[in-house]
Amino acid sequence: MTPASSRVTVVGSGNWGSVAAKLIASNTLKLHSFHDEVRMWVFEEILPSGEKLSQLINQTNENVKYLPGIKLGKNVVADPDLENAVRDATMLVFVTPHQFVEGICKRLVGKIRTDAEAISLIKGMEVKREGPCMISSLISQHLGISCCVLMGANIANEIAVEKFSEATVGYRKDKQTAEKWVQLFNTSYFMVSAVQDVEGVELCGTLKNIVAIAAGFVDGLEMGNNTKAAIMRIGLREMKTFSKLLFPSVKDSTFFESCGVADLITTCLGGRNRRCAEAFARNGGKRSFDELEAEMLQGQKLQGVSTAKEVYEVLRHRGWLELFPLFSTVHEICIGRLPPTAIVEYSEHTPKFSLVGGSAQFF
Amino acid sequence: MTPASSRVTVVGSGNWGSVAAKLIASNTLKLHSFHDEVRMWVFEEILPSGEKLSQLINQTNENVKYLPGIKLGKNVVADPDLENAVRDATMLVFVTPHQFVEGICKRLVGKIRTDAEAISLIKGMEVKREGPCMISSLISQHLGISCCVLMGANIANEIAVEKFSEATVGYRKDKQTAEKWVQLFNTSYFMVSAVQDVEGVELCGTLKNIVAIAAGFVDGLEMGNNTKAAIMRIGLREMKTFSKLLFPSVKDSTFFESCGVADLITTCLGGRNRRCAEAFARNGGKRSFDELEAEMLQGQKLQGVSTAKEVYEVLRHRGWLELFPLFSTVHEICIGRLPPTAIVEYSEHTPKFSLVGGSAQFF
Repeated sequence: MTPASSRVTVVGSGNWGSVAAKLIASNTLKLHSFHDEVRMWVFEEILPSGEKLSQLINQTNENVKYLPGIKLGKNVVADPDLENAVRDATMLVFVTPHQFVEGICKRLVGKIRTDAEAISLIKGMEVKREGPCMISSLISQHLGISCCVLMGANIANEIAVEKFSEATVGYRKDKQTAEKWVQLFNTSYFMVSAVQDVEGVELCGTLKNIVAIAAGFVDGLEMGNNTKAAIMRIGLREMKTFSKLLFPSVKDSTFFESCGVADLITTCLGGRNRRCAEAFARNGGKRSFDELEAEMLQGQKLQGVSTAKEVYEVLRHRGWLELFPLFSTVHEICIGRLPPTAIVEYSEHTPKFSLVGGSAQFF
Repeated sequence: MTPASSRVTVVGSGNWGSVAAKLIASNTLKLHSFHDEVRMWVFEEILPSGEKLSQLINQTNENVKYLPGIKLGKNVVADPDLENAVRDATMLVFVTPHQFVEGICKRLVGKIRTDAEAISLIKGMEVKREGPCMISSLISQHLGISCCVLMGANIANEIAVEKFSEATVGYRKDKQTAEKWVQLFNTSYFMVSAVQDVEGVELCGTLKNIVAIAAGFVDGLEMGNNTKAAIMRIGLREMKTFSKLLFPSVKDSTFFESCGVADLITTCLGGRNRRCAEAFARNGGKRSFDELEAEMLQGQKLQGVSTAKEVYEVLRHRGWLELFPLFSTVHEICIGRLPPTAIVEYSEHTPKFSLVGGSAQFF
């Protein structure tokens, strides 16, 4: 029997973080190579009752605020002290809102074990003009440790009630580490597989939101499933092309994984990006995304709209706009430069979404 | 100006055949390399009014029975005489129900031009134990001419009203011929591209129906979009793996085309296979597919159920059952050997749908 050498800390305790803790906690109990206890860093909140969130989690074994009604497993220990939570961990699971990652990493410098390894479950990296700011890189650079990613068609509340789902671990070089992450997350209802393609996996998790906006436009225009499927396919192709232009190491096969086609399907069927874009198109673009967001999302921001803008800047900067008609059209619709119907109007600029004939595939 | 050397005949005049004739007719008018006239062979029917279908099509320029309300183009000429319809054609578009193809081909032997070329729009080839009986091969073999295929996310009635869609032409060797088919079908709202992979394209059109049955089960069990996306992804993977095992020339990239991922999405969102499978699961498998078909489909047969059976026979015969858990589970649910919930139950036979870790991809 291998000694229980691995200790896991989940950095974050929102909806998805709590589900991740539950998945992990069921495995650390079963697998001898992991310590049973899963530590979960909780950004402390005082609840309306006056109680502290972390204490309530430890008393009830539920995250009463972000995942009510779901037992996390008795081996999950909520800890409001970040430094204390990570001190002994050899495996760090990052699952915070993306805007907090950098601040957290800065606080963790010198506070973690030197042999620790990280994984990021955070979707929503930024795409800067000089290239995307990968969250896995950000973690690696700040902390000097390797960082994998886990992405996929993962609606937290559906996995919380153990509905069948899949996920993809992206790793850079070390297959053994990837296998350990797969072991840690994989359950009978959450099937995880690993691919050697961190960038491809991580980019999927961000770029899909642009496609979801396009799919929402199609829904709002009531164009039917046929058109929607075509738009999703073209979107998937642009995701692949864009990722490969930025990182030549990105693999086509990654887009067949859960992080690719499956997450795209989930996001284009449900999801708030799709929903707001549908409302935008129904209103003929006359109500802005800012207005619809405020009304429909209670203060949350749409990632798709800002990602489309960021990607558009990259495309313009590099002279790639013509290669990405769907991505660029989505942005131009979002800012009111084109009407929502432009998502399927090409007669004036054919070939737009597809180069006619055998040359249709850019890659 | 090239002489108008190509004459097109559409063999078939059902719903999809009529839409194909409309698409083609709009292009033959525009493109000088095609004769304007598009001949459409009509299996003659006497309508309740006593009129002949072919005459009424020529009078009204509509297929009043199978595509009412849509003008086909004045250059479409309905012809109830099969031999006469094909006599001068250099381009034959086959779009009949699949069970009639062989009989039609036998009637056409010696009646077509020797320099004619064919394309098949027919989904629903049979998968026999010794391998699939490709409709394109059947046409090629009987008539001694080359045969391409055109498949994709193509709901005829949506394309008829010019909603944006895409399609894929699969060709064997001759890229020039493929380009000619693309020219003939491509419009601003129907974007066609060509791939050198007849078998991959044609198999997609058949195997997707098995996945649609699986997706319908997930809908009937109300498992949510997350699970449905996972099942669709696994289905796509099995489509790819099965096609490549049968035809090593099949390309991964074909499954990113309209015939692959897009047609799969359309079929799993709408479609009668999905709908009947949903009803089957809602009834806990207690009402047979035969019964549901009779009630829901007015005499039409579900291709997914019979294709699942045919594919199962191939898998069993070749010892491949373990490699195709989704395909085989669909069949076992259809025949009542497993309950509908089995579509997502793997705990007893893990790894079932995914080999854990980096070895997840069979190809």
